[in-house]
Amino acid sequence: MSTPGSLRIVGLGPGGDAWITPEASCFIAHATDLVGYAPYLKRLPLTKGQKRHQSGNGAEVERARHALGLAGDGRHVALVSGGDPGIFAMAAAVFEAIDEGEPRWRDIDVAVIPGISAMQAAAARIGAPLGHDFCAISLSDNLKPWPLVEKRLALAASADFVIALYNPASVARPRRIHDAFALLRGLKPASTPVVFARAVGREDEHISIVTLAGADPSIAGMSTLIIVGSSETRIIPRAGPTPFVYTPRGVKVPR
Amino acid sequence: MSTPGSLRIVGLGPGGDAWITPEASCFIAHATDLVGYAPYLKRLPLTKGQKRHQSGNGAEVERARHALGLAGDGRHVALVSGGDPGIFAMAAAVFEAIDEGEPRWRDIDVAVIPGISAMQAAAARIGAPLGHDFCAISLSDNLKPWPLVEKRLALAASADFVIALYNPASVARPRRIHDAFALLRGLKPASTPVVFARAVGREDEHISIVTLAGADPSIAGMSTLIIVGSSETRIIPRAGPTPFVYTPRGVKVPR
Repeated sequence: MSTPGSLRIVGLGPGGDAWITPEASCFIAHATDLVGYAPYLKRLPLTKGQKRHQSGNGAEVERARHALGLAGDGRHVALVSGGDPGIFAMAAAVFEAIDEGEPRWRDIDVAVIPGISAMQAAAARIGAPLGHDFCAISLSDNLKPWPLVEKRLALAASADFVIALYNPASVARPRRIHDAFALLRGLKPASTPVVFARAVGREDEHISIVTLAGADPSIAGMSTLIIVGSSETRIIPRAGPTPFVYTPRGVKVPR
Repeated sequence: MSTPGSLRIVGLGPGGDAWITPEASCFIAHATDLVGYAPYLKRLPLTKGQKRHQSGNGAEVERARHALGLAGDGRHVALVSGGDPGIFAMAAAVFEAIDEGEPRWRDIDVAVIPGISAMQAAAARIGAPLGHDFCAISLSDNLKPWPLVEKRLALAASADFVIALYNPASVARPRRIHDAFALLRGLKPASTPVVFARAVGREDEHISIVTLAGADPSIAGMSTLIIVGSSETRIIPRAGPTPFVYTPRGVKVPR
């Protein structure tokens, strides 16, 4: 019988080492095994004696099962994830695998190490658009029916939440983002601020601040995070640089 | 005329130095002036020659104006905030102050340094409850009408979002959390998992996992973050330790 292993599901943030917490760095440095999507592993320093298990994109549950298997065999595993593992990333896949997998996996020492999620990095670049009540919705209909996405978008508009949209588009789903914007344009003012944030924290970072009427959803790709304002979200124009976008902490009482 | 100053609104995370990003530490170390709520400043290392401007709780806009005034006078200011400054914290107050304040404040070099927010730390402690579409709502009606909070809670329940509740209760608002739970109990299954996470990352951290029917809202205080599950959120029982709580990445297509 081997000694007990462990699994840490570690958030690297959305790109840029300055967003990797000391807690995350510590678990990465001390793991016997690193598991993750190849480009994430490439970002990490090599540590002597540490094994790397890289995998392709997608196949999250397979990757989770692989990591659990290693931990079940007594290894100390860091499964790395972009952003915050708990927000549209690897953590849910691991707990799905535990829920549906070998009973002994429930006894593995498993913990999540939080990280900066894409919506936080995008918001920080331009001001404080998530400064008041908001929701986060994945536009991917790989694992849920599209009518549920539409229902959530419509209710989010009724609630006047700021809306953060994850996974807005992929090669396999180029049209859904257009459907989503058509729906939101029917429910929210044309002047609503919209932020497209691509690859925040990476070399090809690009941020554009537009209105709901003026937005071109076709610019969204796999690495884009979109923020759609509430009725309170404001743009502060400035002389030179990018304007600020923020949502005030309060809402005035209607008369 | 003084040389241009700067303002960084720096997130410290919810408690525990291991969650302070290298970016945040860098700006704290190099600031000429630190501004913040006294207990946050006490957590930070003393740096020679650095001025500290501590303030009481509340009065966020005053604190923001003070920080902007210093930066306008050429100082390099780190305004520290708990959690992520962009999520129910100091950043929105700063941009409100800029929007309504002296025109020259718009030209100050201002940026937000993101941090781990309380919902992320709470989620990480128990699994992945925020693993799918979710919303974050502040229960404080200091700055917005209570009927708007009720409307958002009801729509969030209809949308079947996981719901993170910030500012659930204070000495001045002891009853609102009971009103919120009464409303949610009328709209969501009694078996819905609910997590009360107090002071995550601090010495007095305490987490309890209950159901909506069994929840006692009176345990919530100023430093409690509450997560109310969606209809998909599950609890994985375990032999010894705390159970895991997670929300799967997908929703099955209704038949």
